[in-house]
Amino acid sequence: MEKTLYFQVEEYKERLRKTQQRMIENGVEVLIATDPANMNYLTGFDGWSFYVHQCIIVMADQEEPIWVGRGQDSNAARLTSWLKEENIRPYTDDYVQSLVKHPMDFVSDIIKEKGYENKIIATEMDTYYYTAKCQERLALGLPNAKFKDGTNLVNWVRIVKSDMEVEYIRRAARIAEKAMETAFKSVDKGVRQCDAAADVYHAQISGTKEYGGDYSAIVPLMPSGIRTSTPHLSWTDEPYQDGETVILELSGCYRRYHCPLARTLIIGDAPQKVRDLEAVVVEGLSNALEAVKPGVTCEDIERVWAKSIAKSGFIKDSRIGYAMGLNYPPDWGEHTASLRPGDKTVLQPNMTFHMIPGIWLSDFGVEISESFRVTENGCETFTNYPRKLLVK
Amino acid sequence: MEKTLYFQVEEYKERLRKTQQRMIENGVEVLIATDPANMNYLTGFDGWSFYVHQCIIVMADQEEPIWVGRGQDSNAARLTSWLKEENIRPYTDDYVQSLVKHPMDFVSDIIKEKGYENKIIATEMDTYYYTAKCQERLALGLPNAKFKDGTNLVNWVRIVKSDMEVEYIRRAARIAEKAMETAFKSVDKGVRQCDAAADVYHAQISGTKEYGGDYSAIVPLMPSGIRTSTPHLSWTDEPYQDGETVILELSGCYRRYHCPLARTLIIGDAPQKVRDLEAVVVEGLSNALEAVKPGVTCEDIERVWAKSIAKSGFIKDSRIGYAMGLNYPPDWGEHTASLRPGDKTVLQPNMTFHMIPGIWLSDFGVEISESFRVTENGCETFTNYPRKLLVK
Repeated sequence: MEKTLYFQVEEYKERLRKTQQRMIENGVEVLIATDPANMNYLTGFDGWSFYVHQCIIVMADQEEPIWVGRGQDSNAARLTSWLKEENIRPYTDDYVQSLVKHPMDFVSDIIKEKGYENKIIATEMDTYYYTAKCQERLALGLPNAKFKDGTNLVNWVRIVKSDMEVEYIRRAARIAEKAMETAFKSVDKGVRQCDAAADVYHAQISGTKEYGGDYSAIVPLMPSGIRTSTPHLSWTDEPYQDGETVILELSGCYRRYHCPLARTLIIGDAPQKVRDLEAVVVEGLSNALEAVKPGVTCEDIERVWAKSIAKSGFIKDSRIGYAMGLNYPPDWGEHTASLRPGDKTVLQPNMTFHMIPGIWLSDFGVEISESFRVTENGCETFTNYPRKLLVK
Repeated sequence: MEKTLYFQVEEYKERLRKTQQRMIENGVEVLIATDPANMNYLTGFDGWSFYVHQCIIVMADQEEPIWVGRGQDSNAARLTSWLKEENIRPYTDDYVQSLVKHPMDFVSDIIKEKGYENKIIATEMDTYYYTAKCQERLALGLPNAKFKDGTNLVNWVRIVKSDMEVEYIRRAARIAEKAMETAFKSVDKGVRQCDAAADVYHAQISGTKEYGGDYSAIVPLMPSGIRTSTPHLSWTDEPYQDGETVILELSGCYRRYHCPLARTLIIGDAPQKVRDLEAVVVEGLSNALEAVKPGVTCEDIERVWAKSIAKSGFIKDSRIGYAMGLNYPPDWGEHTASLRPGDKTVLQPNMTFHMIPGIWLSDFGVEISESFRVTENGCETFTNYPRKLLVK
């Protein structure tokens, strides 16, 4: 079968080498990765099959991981990953959502077949698609293995992007700008929220003339009115009202790489309280971006923000950003570094973040964000969209 | 805050009562439900916040569940659930993706505060957002509790729909028909796959004049050409080719209720092998639907299908359908009954299924499906769309 790979095989191999290095440093001999982003990162595998159990088995001393998934998805592995046929190991359909057989039994059998059943095996303990049952069954099937927590082990390799990955995020940024401009045009008094959301989706997926869009790991978050008091609501089929605040948090996505962008829009005249909050958020965001450069820590950046808003009286009690890039639903964040107190991650060139210092009060909120890359001496914001309250 | 509820409070209370009854029958005193669909089903809670840990705590002897989630999402609980303020328990942001604190520690604390720490506690062990770490931390925090596996406990209550739920699926069906018709119109030789997918999304989200669409739990699955040899690929930015087979599996969604629908389209002349496979699938599907009525089992239905295709020589080694309805990404299936050998679930009125007897061969596949409701004496198919190969 003719494969469609989004990166050179050499790049995948380099990622694998770095992962194996980190495994060895952490005393891990086998890593079972179920995070779809980690599976994609190391093998290229790309399909909406994470609703059944699947994983890759990464051995520190082997040249290729082994893909394990449902039979009908094995052609997706053949078409999208660089793995050899012998390393694509499908299970039969009676393992799917069964009460007697579990796909992790099949994984145990492969690990035994390869002679790795006495090894130190890391699993992604706190990762979405690695359920409590997965660990229970794996431990049962491999009684002589020593288990370790491998949560985020691959994610920490992912945090520094290659130039090609950065290029993909830049393409996602073009899509994000287009989607935000579409939102600005479509949201209006009397328009049903679902119709504006439909236009945003169309822009996200159609993408640009040069680069088609991929599905974003988070749906367009477009709460309005009282619903802007919380960040993670989507839309309803009610029409927008005159005077409403609308939060627009959305992303462009290109080949699974994201560029998130948030803005706040007002339909009609912006009340002074919204303008006041906007001014605080924009100033804090701009100051924090100014402070980005290699060598400073994530908490340093947050401190600049906190200092900037201190005089305003507004309080922000949640993180102001996080590492982002390659991902699948339900999150575009990478779950490694966060811009918050206590996070001592040192910024390095080609780390990519979404800085989103939203403030949600009891009856409204404001979000204005930028996605950025750490450069050799500062930062590059990916999108070029007015950093201010949008007024219709 | 003014609440937006999609059902009467009485309906939520009835669902809770049935869940508590099932808990008692299974010797469960406390159920911790993390499945977003189960959280929604019992409380109404609806937000894209399942990318951080959240749950409801259902006690068999209490009148309301307790919602636990991230601070910034608590207003979403206030706006979308019927719960009293005292039962909305947000955790602070330092629990989010932290290496030292875990949201399940916060859950343990609440269970202790309520005096339930010695009870029999069920967790959804094999549910997407209940990670291995969740169970580890909960067991650590509640050393005197007895744990049971509560996977699918609420899902089995969900399997029989109320009339209002059925009505929502019917509305989703209107959206599904519109989305399929849009796909049929948009997919064509020379059109970029992403542009057709964008049109499909627009139709799904805009919905009908009467009912706006919600985001579907699975993205439009639209593989074409060789990619139809596997079911779970989406689209690329390449143009469709003359003569290509395109699988269209998509859903309408209304207020989180789904109506999935799959068809196969051919651009240009359909090769005989595709026509042959189509005929087998359509005949088997129609025969199996004829057999649906209360009292027969899921495996009975599959047997009718298997008998129907036996003469053709084609082999179908995966289930031909599953219960569906209310859900969130990554799946619209409900993970209870499957139409497959060994599944002895007895059909009852108002159970709803997606029957999708897809066959994927090494170089192409055909999917033609129907979503249906079991009626008093047969079945009602939700969508009205030609049950055949679509030819452009």
